[in-house]
Amino acid sequence: MSDIASATYPVSPRNRVKRKHERGHYDHETVHALLDAAALAHVSYVIDGQPYCTPTLFWREGTRLYWHGSSASRMLRNLADGEPACLTVTHLDAFALARSGFSSSADYRSVMAFGRARLVTDPKEKAQALHMMVDRFFPGRDATLRPATAQEVKATAVIVMEIEEASAKIRAAGVAGDPDAALPIWAERLPVHTVIGASERCPSVPPGMERPAHLAPYAEGRPLEDALREAYAAAEAAAAAG
Amino acid sequence: MSDIASATYPVSPRNRVKRKHERGHYDHETVHALLDAAALAHVSYVIDGQPYCTPTLFWREGTRLYWHGSSASRMLRNLADGEPACLTVTHLDAFALARSGFSSSADYRSVMAFGRARLVTDPKEKAQALHMMVDRFFPGRDATLRPATAQEVKATAVIVMEIEEASAKIRAAGVAGDPDAALPIWAERLPVHTVIGASERCPSVPPGMERPAHLAPYAEGRPLEDALREAYAAAEAAAAAG
Repeated sequence: MSDIASATYPVSPRNRVKRKHERGHYDHETVHALLDAAALAHVSYVIDGQPYCTPTLFWREGTRLYWHGSSASRMLRNLADGEPACLTVTHLDAFALARSGFSSSADYRSVMAFGRARLVTDPKEKAQALHMMVDRFFPGRDATLRPATAQEVKATAVIVMEIEEASAKIRAAGVAGDPDAALPIWAERLPVHTVIGASERCPSVPPGMERPAHLAPYAEGRPLEDALREAYAAAEAAAAAG
Repeated sequence: MSDIASATYPVSPRNRVKRKHERGHYDHETVHALLDAAALAHVSYVIDGQPYCTPTLFWREGTRLYWHGSSASRMLRNLADGEPACLTVTHLDAFALARSGFSSSADYRSVMAFGRARLVTDPKEKAQALHMMVDRFFPGRDATLRPATAQEVKATAVIVMEIEEASAKIRAAGVAGDPDAALPIWAERLPVHTVIGASERCPSVPPGMERPAHLAPYAEGRPLEDALREAYAAAEAAAAAG
């Protein structure tokens, strides 16, 4: 585990944070923590010179990123051959309202991960991925579900991208350092929070059935990223245990 | 204005929603409402065959999308020539926890907009864009700020992309339609909300100065998208009036 704490992604012109380079981080710990705190990513890929930016749920295992979709989707058909891709996760934390437009900004934490995306074809790897697609978010839930049919497995394409390079970019300054702080102009940091809402139980769930323990981290009002990070750690521990 | 309500973006193989086509919308009203409810977008572009996915604040004027950055940034240098780009906005609304992995999903509202991104070079268009970069989010605020210097204007690159094609994709089903609804398995819709936090007044603001009225829509606990949509409408009305 000490290796993991000190490991970093290689830095190249592709992932080097050039602008505001002091905001850049390349260590696995920082990059992975930001990825594991998110469910939604945007994936960029190219078809005939045209870039596409597609939102998707995703998850991580080690230095691999996974996402899925219908076997019929355009993105997945394109990526099946090992196409270059870029998966980005962004946490918007606040608007920084300084005393000039130029000094105004936003606090955010983002990761850009580069690699080649490929269709998962090995049946064992695919079965494991379909399991983690549920359990990474809701650890223990997959075992409670109606198992997948062969036809469903066939209809679900799973994509994997080994991270070749990645960078995290973090701004957390608010309006600190505004050169115009002496001017009598209102300035504030305006935070933004993504939180969990009230669970909407399906009316078809049998009366008397209680919300299962695997959903406990997803409590109303909690920051989504806390629940996701906690769920990820639990799923990782369960996978390591066996 | 009746034209606007009925206008739609052209549909081509690039923007047609192929998978789950019943979720696709192409009318300006739907597309623009989802754009105006967001501050954060992800922009995809290509350099030497490599796709990049970059998060950025953005805003809309009519059928044009604007974003900005340092004149030194890699993305902006690349887009200056009118490079093909794709700007995507995603609102994640809920996890849909059905009784199988296959039927589980997410509720979301997203827009993919395609066009060619270009650097804004006309001084008048750039001045207007730098004004809207503030006022689109906080209508009336720009007039209260320390004006931009010539050097700041030079250091800020503004990018514009005329939307050639766009599509919105909306899923709002929760766990309705789960074919396994008769099974005694827990199922729920788990909502996610992005809300405004408590304003963090800069300690340098003069004592006695009150939070200005242009920030009133950004009240603690309010959905961010409501405040953004309201601010957009106010900024649009002010621009039309003046």
